[in-house]
Amino acid sequence: MATPSLSNLDLVNSCDSLKVAGNNTPLGYVLPTVAELFRNLPDWSLDDAEDDASAIPSLTLVSGTNAAERSAVVAKTCEALRQTGAFTLLKGWRNELYPVYGIGREHLFDIERAASPLFGVNTYGVHMTVYTRSKKSKELKIWARGARGRSRREEPFECLVREAAEEASLAEEVVRKGTKACGTVTYIYVRDERAGGETGLLQPECQYVYDLEVEEDVVPKPGDGEVEEFGLWSVEEVRESLARGEWKPNTALVMLDFFVRHGILTPANERDYIEIVSRLHRKLEFPTP
Amino acid sequence: MATPSLSNLDLVNSCDSLKVAGNNTPLGYVLPTVAELFRNLPDWSLDDAEDDASAIPSLTLVSGTNAAERSAVVAKTCEALRQTGAFTLLKGWRNELYPVYGIGREHLFDIERAASPLFGVNTYGVHMTVYTRSKKSKELKIWARGARGRSRREEPFECLVREAAEEASLAEEVVRKGTKACGTVTYIYVRDERAGGETGLLQPECQYVYDLEVEEDVVPKPGDGEVEEFGLWSVEEVRESLARGEWKPNTALVMLDFFVRHGILTPANERDYIEIVSRLHRKLEFPTP
Repeated sequence: MATPSLSNLDLVNSCDSLKVAGNNTPLGYVLPTVAELFRNLPDWSLDDAEDDASAIPSLTLVSGTNAAERSAVVAKTCEALRQTGAFTLLKGWRNELYPVYGIGREHLFDIERAASPLFGVNTYGVHMTVYTRSKKSKELKIWARGARGRSRREEPFECLVREAAEEASLAEEVVRKGTKACGTVTYIYVRDERAGGETGLLQPECQYVYDLEVEEDVVPKPGDGEVEEFGLWSVEEVRESLARGEWKPNTALVMLDFFVRHGILTPANERDYIEIVSRLHRKLEFPTP
Repeated sequence: MATPSLSNLDLVNSCDSLKVAGNNTPLGYVLPTVAELFRNLPDWSLDDAEDDASAIPSLTLVSGTNAAERSAVVAKTCEALRQTGAFTLLKGWRNELYPVYGIGREHLFDIERAASPLFGVNTYGVHMTVYTRSKKSKELKIWARGARGRSRREEPFECLVREAAEEASLAEEVVRKGTKACGTVTYIYVRDERAGGETGLLQPECQYVYDLEVEEDVVPKPGDGEVEEFGLWSVEEVRESLARGEWKPNTALVMLDFFVRHGILTPANERDYIEIVSRLHRKLEFPTP
């Protein structure tokens, strides 16, 4: 099982925290090598610890007094970083903004999606598992390329409805009527080769998870421009594929959560049951909306 | 919402850790006032920190080289503590043993259930929520005094079947056929007046949760000697009762988890959604089976 295995102590040992001026709440995990690039930038402060040369410095955004001003500064910095070509990650520029929140849940600033892993801020997504149950055999089968999207500042459910139409051609009324909110899956994604761009970056993430049970004749279809087809997989096929490491790490976690909620993984057949259920729901360290 | 609000740092500041000799893994939260009672007992070692007079000492069971021997020593100590009458908690003696596990999941020793909160070791329970859906209105209603039991070293599901018969008179075949494992709820229960006995003791606990949807004509009935009847409550009635603080804290958490899994609490209607879902699944610090 490829869940992240960093302890909180590991994280403290390997990372800075991002902050904004006048607000002592850490907002993201910044790798020391990334933080160094900010040392002489006017809008940022990289504070070396006074007493301990080996301690990791802290990165603070010192410009801007409101969300709009801070967002403008962050955008300027990200654009500059992009121009330098220093980060492969930024070649995936999306022109899509992610919100970052403070401890009082106030909106602190927005940041370009592609740049967010450099700052290690919380990211948010929605994931729906579409499944059906055979009328005859009652067997549960899963449409194994679930609709997947990202919430910007829209409501998770509205994001889901939009993405289900775009990515799986599911009719809005089917989704609005049949979808059930089933919790969240939260974790720290240690970005590897499969994520694209620099590896080792830490991405704390919250996936809002939804289930949609459909009739046997409902077939999700990829939207325009999408190549990968949906297939109707048995639970056993999904399990074997997961065990072969064929799923993106975070999508694998969402599927494990589905298995737990549907009594497919149980205390009787999964020796790591308690640990898995806890770790699918990691308490995120940084403020959430 | 009365979930425990201790940070891990709070816990470190207020507690000892229980250990066994030759095994440096902490096994439980022991309050300093409780630990002091062990200072001169032969089978126990209370190690004051060498360099710091203000640091909290660590309690270690030094006798016994296997589970049977350690269990005998623990039993002797608990019985002695009971005789002194020092702890109201021990007036609830049950002659029921709870297992304690090591980091390699090995069985380290058993401890009398009533004494377990003094040592702050992990405890385990099972909880089933029985509900029905009206054929006409499709409204979901909950049998609001769910079968509730404790696992000793038996399998959680077998414990559930037994307790469902004893506490709710549910037929074994109904339970075996219809029950669905739905995960765990894990938390640290800060014992208050409602728990009985000393308050402030820390009880890390794992509830294995199960759902059972029954036909409208199935009525759970308390077993012999039980007074409290089951009632069929609407979701709204349960929510209002929870908000009035009428539920035991841990049973309230299991019900919130049911609400999350069934799309009753959603990101749209619960502002604390992300935090609640995470905290219903706290990663327990001590080893589990």
